[in-house]
Amino acid sequence: MKLGACYYPEHWPEDMWADDARRMADAGLSRVRIGEFAWSRIEPEPGVFDWGWLDRAINTLHAAGLEIILGTPTATPPKWLADQMPDMFAVDVHGRSRGFGSRRHYCFSHLGYRAEAARITRAVAQRYGNHPAVVMWQTDNEYGCHDTTISYSDAARDAFRFWLAQRYGDIGSLNTAWGNVFWSMEYRGFDQIELPNLTVTEANPAHWLAFRRFSSDQVISFDKAQIDILRELSPNRDVMHNAMGFVTDYDHHDLGQQLDVVMWDSYPLGFLEMFPFSDADKAAYVRQGHPDIAAFHHDLYRGCAADGRWGVIEQQPGPVNWARHNPAPLPGMVRLWTLEAMAHGAELVSYFRWRQAPFAQEQMHAGLLRPDSQAAPGLDEAIQAASDIADLGEAGRPIKEVALIFSYDAEWITQTQPQGEGLSALWAAFSIYTALREAGLNVDIIPPRADLSGYAMVAVPCLPAVPDQLVSALKAFDGSVIIGPRSGSKTDELSIPAGLAPGKLKALFPATVTRSESLRPGTHHAGDGWSATRWLDHLETEAEAELVAEDGMVACWKSANVRYCAAWPEGALIAEIARRAATEAGLEPVTLPTGVRVRKTDTYIFAFNYGNETQQVTLRGIERLGSSALSAAGVAVFEAS
Amino acid sequence: MKLGACYYPEHWPEDMWADDARRMADAGLSRVRIGEFAWSRIEPEPGVFDWGWLDRAINTLHAAGLEIILGTPTATPPKWLADQMPDMFAVDVHGRSRGFGSRRHYCFSHLGYRAEAARITRAVAQRYGNHPAVVMWQTDNEYGCHDTTISYSDAARDAFRFWLAQRYGDIGSLNTAWGNVFWSMEYRGFDQIELPNLTVTEANPAHWLAFRRFSSDQVISFDKAQIDILRELSPNRDVMHNAMGFVTDYDHHDLGQQLDVVMWDSYPLGFLEMFPFSDADKAAYVRQGHPDIAAFHHDLYRGCAADGRWGVIEQQPGPVNWARHNPAPLPGMVRLWTLEAMAHGAELVSYFRWRQAPFAQEQMHAGLLRPDSQAAPGLDEAIQAASDIADLGEAGRPIKEVALIFSYDAEWITQTQPQGEGLSALWAAFSIYTALREAGLNVDIIPPRADLSGYAMVAVPCLPAVPDQLVSALKAFDGSVIIGPRSGSKTDELSIPAGLAPGKLKALFPATVTRSESLRPGTHHAGDGWSATRWLDHLETEAEAELVAEDGMVACWKSANVRYCAAWPEGALIAEIARRAATEAGLEPVTLPTGVRVRKTDTYIFAFNYGNETQQVTLRGIERLGSSALSAAGVAVFEAS
Amino acid sequence: MKLGACYYPEHWPEDMWADDARRMADAGLSRVRIGEFAWSRIEPEPGVFDWGWLDRAINTLHAAGLEIILGTPTATPPKWLADQMPDMFAVDVHGRSRGFGSRRHYCFSHLGYRAEAARITRAVAQRYGNHPAVVMWQTDNEYGCHDTTISYSDAARDAFRFWLAQRYGDIGSLNTAWGNVFWSMEYRGFDQIELPNLTVTEANPAHWLAFRRFSSDQVISFDKAQIDILRELSPNRDVMHNAMGFVTDYDHHDLGQQLDVVMWDSYPLGFLEMFPFSDADKAAYVRQGHPDIAAFHHDLYRGCAADGRWGVIEQQPGPVNWARHNPAPLPGMVRLWTLEAMAHGAELVSYFRWRQAPFAQEQMHAGLLRPDSQAAPGLDEAIQAASDIADLGEAGRPIKEVALIFSYDAEWITQTQPQGEGLSALWAAFSIYTALREAGLNVDIIPPRADLSGYAMVAVPCLPAVPDQLVSALKAFDGSVIIGPRSGSKTDELSIPAGLAPGKLKALFPATVTRSESLRPGTHHAGDGWSATRWLDHLETEAEAELVAEDGMVACWKSANVRYCAAWPEGALIAEIARRAATEAGLEPVTLPTGVRVRKTDTYIFAFNYGNETQQVTLRGIERLGSSALSAAGVAVFEAS
Repeated sequence: MKLGACYYPEHWPEDMWADDARRMADAGLSRVRIGEFAWSRIEPEPGVFDWGWLDRAINTLHAAGLEIILGTPTATPPKWLADQMPDMFAVDVHGRSRGFGSRRHYCFSHLGYRAEAARITRAVAQRYGNHPAVVMWQTDNEYGCHDTTISYSDAARDAFRFWLAQRYGDIGSLNTAWGNVFWSMEYRGFDQIELPNLTVTEANPAHWLAFRRFSSDQVISFDKAQIDILRELSPNRDVMHNAMGFVTDYDHHDLGQQLDVVMWDSYPLGFLEMFPFSDADKAAYVRQGHPDIAAFHHDLYRGCAADGRWGVIEQQPGPVNWARHNPAPLPGMVRLWTLEAMAHGAELVSYFRWRQAPFAQEQMHAGLLRPDSQAAPGLDEAIQAASDIADLGEAGRPIKEVALIFSYDAEWITQTQPQGEGLSALWAAFSIYTALREAGLNVDIIPPRADLSGYAMVAVPCLPAVPDQLVSALKAFDGSVIIGPRSGSKTDELSIPAGLAPGKLKALFPATVTRSESLRPGTHHAGDGWSATRWLDHLETEAEAELVAEDGMVACWKSANVRYCAAWPEGALIAEIARRAATEAGLEPVTLPTGVRVRKTDTYIFAFNYGNETQQVTLRGIERLGSSALSAAGVAVFEAS
Repeated sequence: MKLGACYYPEHWPEDMWADDARRMADAGLSRVRIGEFAWSRIEPEPGVFDWGWLDRAINTLHAAGLEIILGTPTATPPKWLADQMPDMFAVDVHGRSRGFGSRRHYCFSHLGYRAEAARITRAVAQRYGNHPAVVMWQTDNEYGCHDTTISYSDAARDAFRFWLAQRYGDIGSLNTAWGNVFWSMEYRGFDQIELPNLTVTEANPAHWLAFRRFSSDQVISFDKAQIDILRELSPNRDVMHNAMGFVTDYDHHDLGQQLDVVMWDSYPLGFLEMFPFSDADKAAYVRQGHPDIAAFHHDLYRGCAADGRWGVIEQQPGPVNWARHNPAPLPGMVRLWTLEAMAHGAELVSYFRWRQAPFAQEQMHAGLLRPDSQAAPGLDEAIQAASDIADLGEAGRPIKEVALIFSYDAEWITQTQPQGEGLSALWAAFSIYTALREAGLNVDIIPPRADLSGYAMVAVPCLPAVPDQLVSALKAFDGSVIIGPRSGSKTDELSIPAGLAPGKLKALFPATVTRSESLRPGTHHAGDGWSATRWLDHLETEAEAELVAEDGMVACWKSANVRYCAAWPEGALIAEIARRAATEAGLEPVTLPTGVRVRKTDTYIFAFNYGNETQQVTLRGIERLGSSALSAAGVAVFEAS
Repeated sequence: MKLGACYYPEHWPEDMWADDARRMADAGLSRVRIGEFAWSRIEPEPGVFDWGWLDRAINTLHAAGLEIILGTPTATPPKWLADQMPDMFAVDVHGRSRGFGSRRHYCFSHLGYRAEAARITRAVAQRYGNHPAVVMWQTDNEYGCHDTTISYSDAARDAFRFWLAQRYGDIGSLNTAWGNVFWSMEYRGFDQIELPNLTVTEANPAHWLAFRRFSSDQVISFDKAQIDILRELSPNRDVMHNAMGFVTDYDHHDLGQQLDVVMWDSYPLGFLEMFPFSDADKAAYVRQGHPDIAAFHHDLYRGCAADGRWGVIEQQPGPVNWARHNPAPLPGMVRLWTLEAMAHGAELVSYFRWRQAPFAQEQMHAGLLRPDSQAAPGLDEAIQAASDIADLGEAGRPIKEVALIFSYDAEWITQTQPQGEGLSALWAAFSIYTALREAGLNVDIIPPRADLSGYAMVAVPCLPAVPDQLVSALKAFDGSVIIGPRSGSKTDELSIPAGLAPGKLKALFPATVTRSESLRPGTHHAGDGWSATRWLDHLETEAEAELVAEDGMVACWKSANVRYCAAWPEGALIAEIARRAATEAGLEPVTLPTGVRVRKTDTYIFAFNYGNETQQVTLRGIERLGSSALSAAGVAVFEAS
């Protein structure tokens, strides 16, 4: 695994560049990402390019032996461009234009901006496409960040109508698919269809779902235009994009299919603060992040990549600036995060950013260097990680154990119709993922179309609309299967299937969900150490009632090799179900100490302690790095026996 | 009492209709409501009507012996109509147009839409006004639902100016009435007056109150136009409208005066979740709803009806889709709700809906049938209720005990000027209602203009502006009277009366409220088992200080037959006051077990257990249905002795 | 100290005026503020003035011996004016025009309204500038109230561009100062710069800071225009403006420099409810207000006034109307507040308002009289206060002990970049102020440019950008100094200084803040009775680690006479630091009983009990008023020994 850094030569005096490059190389970094926000410096006036500084920056980095990942600068169009096309901005859900002054100020559907994005991409690719230092391209930056996938602009409305016409062919088909007879919502032509925001009460969920799918497709096609140019003008280089954490507004599986590598931006402390983890978890892991945040995304984005190639292009190296509260990582965490990425098979971990900028929005975001160019705590940890990596060599091939099925479409469906505020397919997946990881199991998060061969166990946390391909694969699968609530409960057009839930999954699990209900937090059906909460599915089935609450509510049904979790897959409930399923699958679930996680390859067993206390881990294998007495933020690596 | 269902033939293949009709009749349902959302099917193109399907639907239902309640489809204008008049939409408080894509997308003040609503009403009434199956009409659907009474459109502004000119005659009178000299808000003409939203800080409360009254009047006149057409074209049929729960934006007393029957839509579980009940109540009654939600509205809407005719046109039969969390009712609750309506004198309980729709916004809303046409749990309970009703015959004439005065105007005043966040006249009424019900008393909720004869006791929970007629009636009344805080504290124009509160009620209760204050939740004056909280009125009076807190704060004053509750009428405080007043009035207040409620007629005593445990009730009378050991969700009926 | 009242003759029949004036004088009031909301009565039609009523009102008050403070009516332009210039309204952060219907409906940058404000000011000043009764002018009313300092109008945008051009000279300087190379935010001309609202994610903090400074300057220049007219046409009269509590949107130090007197509007109960005090404080002081609310503003606004002249022009006399909950003051509090103002050196306390108005927005706001002209409880307390003041004579000259440095610019910086939600320079200042007051110390809150001579101790709670003048003054200061977190952490353009924090303060305290972090509430580093929370600064320094948490986190560093508080200055932590610093400075910090505060002059020691229990105070000096057994809401005055 390589290490790298994100660097902004345009932010620093030119006479600092060479020394920066030398220090990067000395620290064991071999790759450097540049350029993704530099449009105003590359093209300061319309049509007037200034390549000199960038030529010199690239050559300086190259001279130090660094490989360059070059970004297209389309996430930050300059003001002169916005002034030429004032309608290029996205429009928010309240109908307000999202104006200039930060970044990502464009609507994916604006044809004018699409042309400009292609123009600047072509210009940059022409200039540097064959430069020997340039080994990889990044398209744009963090699609979807700041809630920018979805735009309610006129451009989006027009494109949505076109997309609908393509999808449904005639308006009658759309009316039928959406059930528009309900509330007289029938349309007489595609040009009558509006965007689903600002309606009196909620719009048709099928309307929303179509708009979510459309919005995702716009991102994919925007990205594709850049990829085509880059592949044309910069042959033999990889193209990647950097995904964010917990952003699900576009289909990362779709995007991954057209990229060479999927990378992501890993900010465990910021994500802990900003996402709905419990107060207890936020207190326990304030300086570590929840133990599964990074790993979940490693395993998710690896599953998005066409060939499984992935990495971390932005790794938090200290406090960030953008969460409500921004603590510093526990000493050791930067190294731990780096090695956890290695354990999951990353090809690169790159720190964001090389040096903390003293100005503008991210001035409180730490770098490997402080603004005064002194080493920040993260630098020493990166150097240590580089040494560890050199010591370990290759991470080894991952052991296949559990496949966890996740689809972005499922997330959109559950967001559209949560029927139980605050829950969704993503969080069902995360909850099951945590249970599996606490049991010491390796998990691959894969799309419904992926191959299930080689796995001992499959979990389908919440997949309302089930592709036929998955049904076939699951029927052919003879390991343990866990199906979570709401799975199979919808058609592809967000209707209830004719035979009711679990719809197509009846082929796998013979049952009918006669009623779904949702409970407010705090209400529950108590079982033996677990409880059934939040989402409840009531089944008519001949299956075995495996876990039954004191009041008779069945929380888990079992039929042959398949379990149906009939409540929200939370905590002790899903842990119990996962333990049973894994044992039956021939896996060996363990009970790891609090905060400890492991990841197994054919070469190594990696162990990580996210907790605040030293923990003793008992793993088979010879200690290769660290020891089985894992201190807080400690890492141990054992040779697989 | 009859039973019925809401049915949408347009949602289902025509070949299912006859079987549906037969099954309805077999289940003991005799009435079916249809048509209220079917505009796009009745008039698919401007001026092109398709009556065939509806003719056949009506005839099919008729053939099965069902009586039809036909709705005017004005709550769901089709898109082609909206496209003709893009300014027909209501405008929200933020100034945003509330566009097409769900329902109720019209502004009550839009003259173009008023004309269209009359046109379609006339067309439907001409077609079916004399059809033998059609026994009743419903105008529109749920006025005010989704916060649609109030619109900040240009049409509303223009109509408001006209309404003000009618009300005040000259601008000087308006300026004086509102106190516009304050902050130089004086107007020189009615055309200078804006709507009260989007002001820098709060607008004049008199301005708001006038706008609330105007907005209500717009609903009433919109409805009246339909009634006039229906009475002209469909003689000898009843006209009703379906009110919602806890919606107070228009004056239901005014509406009731022009209808033949007032009906309402009873969703106890959804209302529990969405309205400000305590967390303890939400946990205790998660599958029952608070024990007074349904009864409160029964007693309220009966008091709204010109001749006391009322019913439940939409009864929750299972989980709904629209609350934050949507649990299923406890087994037995659908029957319980049905029989509670009977106990309060309903002429109809109709379940919403016959069959759960598999598509669009309400696909997660249960019906009596599941989407696959199998019986949902609610159907069996409806059948049981039909059997019970047949067994019991007429419910009997209600025993008059307590009159509780409520006015929509009072609610608007307290919402406009809560002076103590989160409280209002409605919730004062609900709190007193609960105290009276827990004491086993029959309550009629009536407008200030209603006749008080026959009652032993009158409660005025919170009536800031007091009509002269009520003062006279109360002076003539010799039973017990309870007056709640803030009553009499305002003139009709939302000013403080010259002699201060309780204003006109001084004729009844000689006192002066020298100071009103409000306390944040948690702050209180402790009494003997009760406490004085939230709203406090300080009185100068010769009355007896009946309930005095430890620190001297007087929570209840007594003068002759009148008690003045000087704090928020909450829990133990109002229970104690109610008990004293009722005893003095010759009533016999009891202490019902937790969750149990009763309703008394001259024929029966009905008892209902909303609690989670079996409760023993001791009531005089012979067990006719059920037993005095009332299980959870149980109903017992005793013959009145 | 004089007493007065705010009076609105235009609200009352003319035949009540003389009696009102007599009763004011009888109550010991000598000054009366009038006119500040009367534009619609002064100029009912464009250009048509009605002076008669105001002439008579002024003469009537004058005849009773009252001195008049006359307000310019520019806070309440009449509707006819707004109709002439519909773009005169401020625009809110969401882009919505803030329309007519309450008050303060104008944008400070609108040139048309500026001309109108000057015109009406000139008209009023010409009429009454030399009237013998008029002794003081008030400009406008409560600048900034209702969030009105900042406007996102086109007028504001244009003025902002002009202001920027003046400040930065050329666009390159602005780009460099703001770091606009970041995210390609570079501008090519001042006319490209937008307002910083409605951006995709947060705008550049330097952009925000510039806009905050500009917005404040607009208030100052708007005010200056009125002052110039008043000084021209009303010689030898004082000009003041009335500030609010906890409003920091314009620079009150700047405003104070151009006024003769700074006054403020003291509503301790409303402020307690509406500002982020703890629930415990809100419960404990529900009828008193937090013990430091009034005093903090007394000491703050005295420091804003050019010559230290200040007063309370609006004193809460009973419940207010505008908080979420509006309790009545504890008996005695109105007198206590009055005498606390005296103890801090006020020249006037004027009650708002003379008589409670029965109409419009503030009808629930108490006056000294009830709406029926009877005495409200506040009147008797005002009379008692008048007697006390007469008895005591002059308050005496304050004892100088602690200077607390606060700047509005610091508040804008910490609001712009809180990096730890919910905290800011203002609340750091308030927290330290409370610690000092609880230790019985006199505090002057002064701007960074103020003279430090005569103080024994200086506290700099949080001053990110440090003026050179303060650095010099602190270096020359040999008393105890406390520096709070984030001080010196920014340049004047909101960047990180070259040598990192504490920037210029390194001259005083040799250290480098290597890392700043922020923690969510509840996370802390426990020390000996204190804890380090919320904001943490990590230092490299040779200074002594004076207070160290159990886990090694240093909460307070000490170097010579300077202490650096490295965590949020909260509760026990800052109390311990303040006690140490004060003792070293030769002051005598005490531990006052809960709720008790003192203020010391060379003549008297005033003691005030804000608590709910009687407290024994032991102070040197002879009892002059009250006794050392201080009852709840009690005041005692001792002669300084």
